[in-house]
Amino acid sequence: MQKPSVNEDKIEGRNAVIEALRSERTIDKLYIQDGCQDGPVMTIKRMAKNKDIFVKYVAKERLDQMSDTGHHQGVIAISAAYEYAEVEDILQKARDKGEAPFIFLLDNIEDPHNLGAIIRTANLAGAHGVIIPKNRAVGLTSTVARTSAGALNYTPVARVTNISKTIDELKKEGLWFVCADMGGETMYRLNLTGPIGLVIGNEGEGVSRLVKEKCDFIASIPMKGDIDSLNASVAAGILAYEIVRQRG
Amino acid sequence: MQKPSVNEDKIEGRNAVIEALRSERTIDKLYIQDGCQDGPVMTIKRMAKNKDIFVKYVAKERLDQMSDTGHHQGVIAISAAYEYAEVEDILQKARDKGEAPFIFLLDNIEDPHNLGAIIRTANLAGAHGVIIPKNRAVGLTSTVARTSAGALNYTPVARVTNISKTIDELKKEGLWFVCADMGGETMYRLNLTGPIGLVIGNEGEGVSRLVKEKCDFIASIPMKGDIDSLNASVAAGILAYEIVRQRG
Repeated sequence: MQKPSVNEDKIEGRNAVIEALRSERTIDKLYIQDGCQDGPVMTIKRMAKNKDIFVKYVAKERLDQMSDTGHHQGVIAISAAYEYAEVEDILQKARDKGEAPFIFLLDNIEDPHNLGAIIRTANLAGAHGVIIPKNRAVGLTSTVARTSAGALNYTPVARVTNISKTIDELKKEGLWFVCADMGGETMYRLNLTGPIGLVIGNEGEGVSRLVKEKCDFIASIPMKGDIDSLNASVAAGILAYEIVRQRG
Repeated sequence: MQKPSVNEDKIEGRNAVIEALRSERTIDKLYIQDGCQDGPVMTIKRMAKNKDIFVKYVAKERLDQMSDTGHHQGVIAISAAYEYAEVEDILQKARDKGEAPFIFLLDNIEDPHNLGAIIRTANLAGAHGVIIPKNRAVGLTSTVARTSAGALNYTPVARVTNISKTIDELKKEGLWFVCADMGGETMYRLNLTGPIGLVIGNEGEGVSRLVKEKCDFIASIPMKGDIDSLNASVAAGILAYEIVRQRG
């Protein structure tokens, strides 16, 4: 009796995907069936490469499962519901407000509800923007837009190829970086004032090793219970508000 | 191409619901089609009344929409995936640990993902239990169990008929109550130590008036952005960890 939910961010089928790639629309990700080599698919691959779009090769069964229409013809594109900003826009926002930059960096958040909730928190904690990686992680889908509760209209979200490299660049702008991880110093004892980047890791795996090595501090949230970890968006909120408290 | 997701907590059809009501299984809620008056439905209503189960009368279309099987015959029961504790179990847990009670009270959280994330946070913040209302709000469904990330195995959740009345009873045990709401005192300025009940309101409407009047403090989380409010589970996390910080 249930209708399949149609995801407005999915573009299915060769012609529809080629049209989307020709348009100004931002494509987050492209799924192509493994082994597809015919003309239209080669065209799609070439266009994706020119536009620097991340392509993931998957089995037909995966596409069947993702498909709402049942007519994917070996290609499904995921379009962004919002436009991405540049990292420079985020820094400019801090300058315009005369504040030390406060930026969230998300190291591969995969759940759109978490991404939406984190953008919502970033807005209310007074952060100047959010940086997400281009590949693997979830992009600005309509679910993210909805769960951000309007925050996407105000808080710029930039997408970068490499979070570690972006951290290096932002260090030149004077930012310090803190990531959440177990075994770090209790967050209440760290000095989290000044220009700061708050790094939040993946839901299952936490912050990746390369990114963690770039961070100046590792902050831990006190864990007094029996289980392993907080929900990623809750952890982001707790750390962000410790920064708010110390800045206040 | 998508299969409808089967919710293992739903019990559909007259015989299945009567069987469930006869068993030891905990039923959270019962949906009955408006105007149904025949024998089996009258039996179900009587059994529900005897077991003090909340019954909601809805139009046939609503049941059609909820149904996974298409054969609800005018009745759908929602069973709990976990057993509920008693409020006394929560107080006993605090006594066993030799700690001042720290209890979460949820005034009508409706989203199972929020409820799961809040129980997860309650566990890690060292709270002794969570109290939820019997009617209207979401109960301990399998989605809640999953998003609690195992916390339901450790943190007792009690269900009460009336949150305001429970607050009155817990005040006799020496608890103070703080709820999150706009226009309150900034949380950093409140003294949140000692035996405490943290009240979290509904996702859309916040804490209800009657419950708010029972609270000793209204705490506000500083809002520095453009939108109205944080996600309910993020707000719960931020306030809970302000309590952790002050207790530490």
